[in-house]
Amino acid sequence: MEKVHVLFSGGKDSSLSAILLKKLGYELELITINFGILDSYRHAQETAKILGLPHSVEFLDGEILEKSVDIILKDGFPSNGIQYIHKTVIEILSDKYKLIADGTRRDDRVPKLSHSEIQSIEMRKKIQYITPLTGFGHKTIRSLVDNYFVISEKESEDLLKSDYETEIRELIKLRGENPLDYFPKHIQSRVIGLKEKI
Amino acid sequence: MEKVHVLFSGGKDSSLSAILLKKLGYELELITINFGILDSYRHAQETAKILGLPHSVEFLDGEILEKSVDIILKDGFPSNGIQYIHKTVIEILSDKYKLIADGTRRDDRVPKLSHSEIQSIEMRKKIQYITPLTGFGHKTIRSLVDNYFVISEKESEDLLKSDYETEIRELIKLRGENPLDYFPKHIQSRVIGLKEKI
Repeated sequence: MEKVHVLFSGGKDSSLSAILLKKLGYELELITINFGILDSYRHAQETAKILGLPHSVEFLDGEILEKSVDIILKDGFPSNGIQYIHKTVIEILSDKYKLIADGTRRDDRVPKLSHSEIQSIEMRKKIQYITPLTGFGHKTIRSLVDNYFVISEKESEDLLKSDYETEIRELIKLRGENPLDYFPKHIQSRVIGLKEKI
Repeated sequence: MEKVHVLFSGGKDSSLSAILLKKLGYELELITINFGILDSYRHAQETAKILGLPHSVEFLDGEILEKSVDIILKDGFPSNGIQYIHKTVIEILSDKYKLIADGTRRDDRVPKLSHSEIQSIEMRKKIQYITPLTGFGHKTIRSLVDNYFVISEKESEDLLKSDYETEIRELIKLRGENPLDYFPKHIQSRVIGLKEKI
């Protein structure tokens, strides 16, 4: 089967999404987005090694992150800024890869492309955009995650991850603001072990 | 892992949905709904045998089918009647089973439960309702189907299937009307072989 490029943060959702596609028979490459502010992609590299899946880092223009932080500081909350990054990333990857996937879940609000945005990008760019977890609710995902992974859960500011939020927080700090004024504390998770060979 | 009951018509979508859940490690039971008008469930039984998955028939009250046909004859088109059956079936199964799945796809219009309907039924009935194909567009599904199945495609009135439509058409005939006045001709498909052991 064809190769899918899976957006990968090292968290449980993108890891589960990758496993599902692997089990369906796809060839995979995990890709982590980085904007050059922190080398936070190293955490995803470690998790990819645990999963035994090929991984690469996609370095994108720091202007995208700057614009996202502009939006967040103006809004006072992060959802629109994160949504802006995610849509921009999908658009850019669509020019390079034919099959793109991510860890968007059914019960997520952002980042999430609407059905018409997905159909638009698939038609304009002649790609397939796959979100394997959108058929699964949070309870089902929790039981699948428990089945496959050993998880480390920590407060968001203590956990080293490779998602958009990590570099956004750093850039907010560099602009002299406190990330906690924009991101409420929440528990973040990272995959640190695999319970079953995939 | 727990047992999932997968609504199963013998078509490619419900078959693919079942395979995906099987590959994720779930124990499966395929179930075909029948309203006692035709023994059309036999086609799904055959396909279940081809897939090598356990199968049973769920006989439900013929009144549900009657009401669906009332709606279709009144509307002049089938979508609301089919949606009515599907929602009613999910409600009934939710009283019996903890995990229920079907073959709803991302690009389907009906039958399809909205996000809030899904959240409502999951909370009210304390179940998990899984629609594994809603993360996949039609192009991706086509390539997965080609990868796994040998398909028979025929005009809808010639293909023997076990979906709601088969008994609806029969009941419309029994009421002295022509199903073709309500269901436009369309190509239907059935899984008749497996290309890869699952």
